[in-house]
Amino acid sequence: MQKYVLFLIFILIMSQIHTNAQDILDSKASDPNKLAWMQGFPPTKDKIISAIDGSFFQFPALRYSVCHMRQFMPTTVVKSHSGKGYKFKVRLDEDIDNVRFTPTNSSETMTWRESLDKNYTDGMLILHKGKIVYEYYFGALKPDGVHAAMSVSKTFTGTLGGLLVAEGVLDENKTAEYYIPELKGSAFANATIRQILDMTTGLKYSEDYSNPKAEIWAFTAAGNPFSKIENGPSNYYEYLATVQKEGVHGEVFGYKTINTDAMGWIVSRVTGKSIPQLLSERIWKPLGTHVDGYFQIDGAGIAFAGGGFSANMRDMAMFGEMVRNKGKFNKKQILPIALIEDIMKGGDKEKFSKSVYGSLKGWSYRNMWWHTHNEHGAFAARGVHGQTIYIDPTAEMVIVRFASHPEAKNAYIDPTSLPAYHAVAKYLLSK
Amino acid sequence: MQKYVLFLIFILIMSQIHTNAQDILDSKASDPNKLAWMQGFPPTKDKIISAIDGSFFQFPALRYSVCHMRQFMPTTVVKSHSGKGYKFKVRLDEDIDNVRFTPTNSSETMTWRESLDKNYTDGMLILHKGKIVYEYYFGALKPDGVHAAMSVSKTFTGTLGGLLVAEGVLDENKTAEYYIPELKGSAFANATIRQILDMTTGLKYSEDYSNPKAEIWAFTAAGNPFSKIENGPSNYYEYLATVQKEGVHGEVFGYKTINTDAMGWIVSRVTGKSIPQLLSERIWKPLGTHVDGYFQIDGAGIAFAGGGFSANMRDMAMFGEMVRNKGKFNKKQILPIALIEDIMKGGDKEKFSKSVYGSLKGWSYRNMWWHTHNEHGAFAARGVHGQTIYIDPTAEMVIVRFASHPEAKNAYIDPTSLPAYHAVAKYLLSK
Repeated sequence: MQKYVLFLIFILIMSQIHTNAQDILDSKASDPNKLAWMQGFPPTKDKIISAIDGSFFQFPALRYSVCHMRQFMPTTVVKSHSGKGYKFKVRLDEDIDNVRFTPTNSSETMTWRESLDKNYTDGMLILHKGKIVYEYYFGALKPDGVHAAMSVSKTFTGTLGGLLVAEGVLDENKTAEYYIPELKGSAFANATIRQILDMTTGLKYSEDYSNPKAEIWAFTAAGNPFSKIENGPSNYYEYLATVQKEGVHGEVFGYKTINTDAMGWIVSRVTGKSIPQLLSERIWKPLGTHVDGYFQIDGAGIAFAGGGFSANMRDMAMFGEMVRNKGKFNKKQILPIALIEDIMKGGDKEKFSKSVYGSLKGWSYRNMWWHTHNEHGAFAARGVHGQTIYIDPTAEMVIVRFASHPEAKNAYIDPTSLPAYHAVAKYLLSK
Repeated sequence: MQKYVLFLIFILIMSQIHTNAQDILDSKASDPNKLAWMQGFPPTKDKIISAIDGSFFQFPALRYSVCHMRQFMPTTVVKSHSGKGYKFKVRLDEDIDNVRFTPTNSSETMTWRESLDKNYTDGMLILHKGKIVYEYYFGALKPDGVHAAMSVSKTFTGTLGGLLVAEGVLDENKTAEYYIPELKGSAFANATIRQILDMTTGLKYSEDYSNPKAEIWAFTAAGNPFSKIENGPSNYYEYLATVQKEGVHGEVFGYKTINTDAMGWIVSRVTGKSIPQLLSERIWKPLGTHVDGYFQIDGAGIAFAGGGFSANMRDMAMFGEMVRNKGKFNKKQILPIALIEDIMKGGDKEKFSKSVYGSLKGWSYRNMWWHTHNEHGAFAARGVHGQTIYIDPTAEMVIVRFASHPEAKNAYIDPTSLPAYHAVAKYLLSK
């Protein structure tokens, strides 16, 4: 089993495990500085977080690890802008802390500030009309640091895929096999680019960790750069070529990480560039970002397109603000308007409602973005443990949130975050 | 043995192994771009460089790896300056290519340009009076990239140690045990700060790779972040506390990497900061560097102070130029004049001459800098496979060289580099 352990992250990224609530330290008690993870020269034995025993991604240690992923695994850089970079205007609004909202399925209200603690928030940034009105750092996150984006990574890969569609480099009606002949014989072979981008593929792929035969284990093993695989796929791409079909493509939304890794492969094949490199060249550098981001990689140097990105919070906010402005940022059109309009329109609500995510009523998924279809037309990038980029076009608001919630499932985090975001949006609208 | 393999780098950093000359590809034939290491999506099997089988650090694969160390191991950042940074003036002098010199023990002359190929140079930068007069990138090195500094890392750790001595934070006459009680019982216990900084300690520490009982193996195993050590030291510091004495402290120069790691420990203990953090705060940021560097780390997050630094070439040049100007750079006094004068004075020539490095006639070692004591008073930071920062005060010249020479021993590289540096110095002096 040892070879599986390092990349527990892959598992946990999509984990459905619900930890026993009464045993869990709260936000303040689990502050990684207070717990002194990896502090001291050397840290005491019980404060060493290790890659080899999987402890680096267990709560509360993960509150440290999410800001230091490179200390536990091989990574490759996403270069930021090389010059002075973009500087946000800052107009902090302290009243936001007191904005009240009612958590989903709750009878009692809560303040914005309380929600940050409740949700184990490491970083929170709110832009209103492009200015920073709220900025908060906690735990191991530093203003010039990075944080694991988890499945928010998918949104970057999906946006790059959508960009290539908008530019005509990819035909969204062509199949994956057309671009990647090696996918012949796999479930992806006859899935279209559009189906992959919107995750409506029918894939035999289980992320049930209680089942030792679940496909997630082979994916995890394939992506582990430190295990030598004798029989079976030894990197992400080799794994993707083995995925079998289940159901029909194009009918139901099925949130499966491997769609994003397949899209990453396609994007890299047609551009000749890795996802980290393309993200840097097409988005990160043009934005004027300040801090180099990075992706974790497998043993063949392939970036984990479905979940491996770590980035700086203000840099993330630049991306969100650019998308809110239909691809324009700091006087430059960075992404095509047509792509952003396609994202803002959202996906197929019916296909979404039939999925296991149907509890997010009225939502849809498009180009690896989640669309709330709420009264403000808000849409978002979302990652486990509470990562998000939440864009509210009506309120001219962008929220970036990094967190290290003990639960890997957003269903535990959404009740005290989605209504909070909407309440702040309404507050900003009313100003 | 598998647990030893990943950190073959530790071994090779100090390797004395001489590869069979006739089998070795020359500089052009071993160009990593031409050999297409890790190129393509995915790379073909024979072009994948892996951490697990140790291939990442074998020539010619190392020509790729030296520029991508983070892709093979856990790392921690050395933050560069966050603003615009320092910009060198560039006045390229193409005549340098034609400067001729006579390699050591050779009867035939060679041009500067020929020496670059001969020495598998990845990057070469020459500053004259602070301006870039020569700049060359080859293979996997990019202007905005980084390269493994190998034992040039020692010079940074030594300089930080010397800085703390100059500031009175460390007393050079006190023993290691005074600062690190855990070193009691080890050879370091009664070694002074000065002896450690100048590597005149008497340590039972062999780097003979043909001997399976050589101490290097335990050091390597201790530093491997992916091996679980059941019996014995499991990180660098734990290893250092086990080092036994051999000979007498203070009598002979003995170039042993673990001195630097001991100094790294002492520096971190008294400052409460890791070497990467202190290097960033005290040197890298004040210089106005442009590219984040990084250190490889062990399983306790401890930086490999003796050899784990990767950095950008122009950033390295800023450091060299600052030292040449007695600690001043871009109108700021970054390091104290007293420290730099102590480095420029050099160490004890007699203690050096008695060492295995005695073939470097008339040289000395001080604060983890090599001093040539040649007619120009040149001194240098040096790392295996051809890394150097070479400072010639008389010629007002600083050379930074990154390389991936197949030989891990500078004795194979010096004959076509040291005379070349001196010839260029004389050329620049004569201008």
